[in-house]
Amino acid sequence: MKVLIVHAHPEPNSFTAALRDQAVSTLEAQGHEVQVSDLYAMDWNPVASRNDFSSRGNPEYLVYALEQRLGVKSQSLAADIQAELDKLLWADLLILNFPIFWFSAPAMLKGWIDRVLVSGICYGGKRFYDQGGLSGKQALVTVTLGGREHMFGEGAIHGPLQDMLRPILRGTLAYVGFDVLEPFVAWHVPYISDEARQAFLIDYGLRLQRLEDEQPLEFPRLAQFDEQLYPLVVDA
Amino acid sequence: MKVLIVHAHPEPNSFTAALRDQAVSTLEAQGHEVQVSDLYAMDWNPVASRNDFSSRGNPEYLVYALEQRLGVKSQSLAADIQAELDKLLWADLLILNFPIFWFSAPAMLKGWIDRVLVSGICYGGKRFYDQGGLSGKQALVTVTLGGREHMFGEGAIHGPLQDMLRPILRGTLAYVGFDVLEPFVAWHVPYISDEARQAFLIDYGLRLQRLEDEQPLEFPRLAQFDEQLYPLVVDA
Repeated sequence: MKVLIVHAHPEPNSFTAALRDQAVSTLEAQGHEVQVSDLYAMDWNPVASRNDFSSRGNPEYLVYALEQRLGVKSQSLAADIQAELDKLLWADLLILNFPIFWFSAPAMLKGWIDRVLVSGICYGGKRFYDQGGLSGKQALVTVTLGGREHMFGEGAIHGPLQDMLRPILRGTLAYVGFDVLEPFVAWHVPYISDEARQAFLIDYGLRLQRLEDEQPLEFPRLAQFDEQLYPLVVDA
Repeated sequence: MKVLIVHAHPEPNSFTAALRDQAVSTLEAQGHEVQVSDLYAMDWNPVASRNDFSSRGNPEYLVYALEQRLGVKSQSLAADIQAELDKLLWADLLILNFPIFWFSAPAMLKGWIDRVLVSGICYGGKRFYDQGGLSGKQALVTVTLGGREHMFGEGAIHGPLQDMLRPILRGTLAYVGFDVLEPFVAWHVPYISDEARQAFLIDYGLRLQRLEDEQPLEFPRLAQFDEQLYPLVVDA
């Protein structure tokens, strides 16, 4: 298996980085190939802009997704985007590894999503959800957060964590066709003992050794909708 | 009323920018004071990093929220953050004005949230949701998107738009104490006629003239939870 880990944390020695390293060593020990995009170390540019295209279909007015489609065809995507896109297309498994900032990804990682998941390859027209351009690949979201586990779930103060992660799990990863696995979550990380953190690392390693046994989360399939994307009514 | 509009779109002449301008003219005509932070025009830096603090509590290991708290006390936040924070604290109403990228905010705006909503002022300890540091202020999310309205809602292919916007509406704006109004949504913008776009601008202007009649969305209140933030059980 080929694995791309996209890691975004402003502290190089964070526990989130330890999870990244645990993934690299566990997956390599199993014979998988692993590449890491460490966005802070790379000084990744997260800002989608007109500078992302060396030539433009319409130099007067920027429609970003349209220029992505043209950029794919004419190979005029910025070099940093193309390099990440090549890694993404190479990978069988994508791991997004990040600390929760405002119940979502840090801007650094959001900007990787904005710029790298290009229209024309990853999605476009009726190619989304199970028909998405990256179907056949798996994705795993691995997160650290400050909150305690009991603050999340039905009736809990923040509601289910997967509901907060919906734009990433469903709106992004499932949208482009990934089989999305249940997120790996390390809770309350800044406040727990080294032993508790070690336990998370061990759990994570064990989980990564058995990914092939997992069932992905359920998301919409285009066959459930008509040509205009209205839901098909099933007779009772 | 004092209003801060935070606008993030890579195309200066976008319809999203027209919504920004409509808000400025409508609100100013009503006698309100308006400031605009146009993040692309400002070349805003969206990356939360060690560079955000002119002095550090712990120069060896970055815990971003901890350094924010110290930075507030010692006035060592980066100048660009402090300038935005001053505008935010000045405002009675915050409008986030952006195109939906991946069912959420562009990285440019996410990085404004990551860097400007500092711990120690906007939230901290038990100061969140209705007890958040920005309570008493209102927030409105104004978005443009490519999808059609029938693709969102219960049973629709993408589910309710407010569920996709949950990390922003609940996890960010309500979390820091804002009264969060129902989002203003301009659907299917790249594909509609100029007349249809004009109709959105008119609707938006009318809505902004009557914001004082609106009831905010409902979110958790801390009184519903115990000291450890477990939900209080109400006897039937």
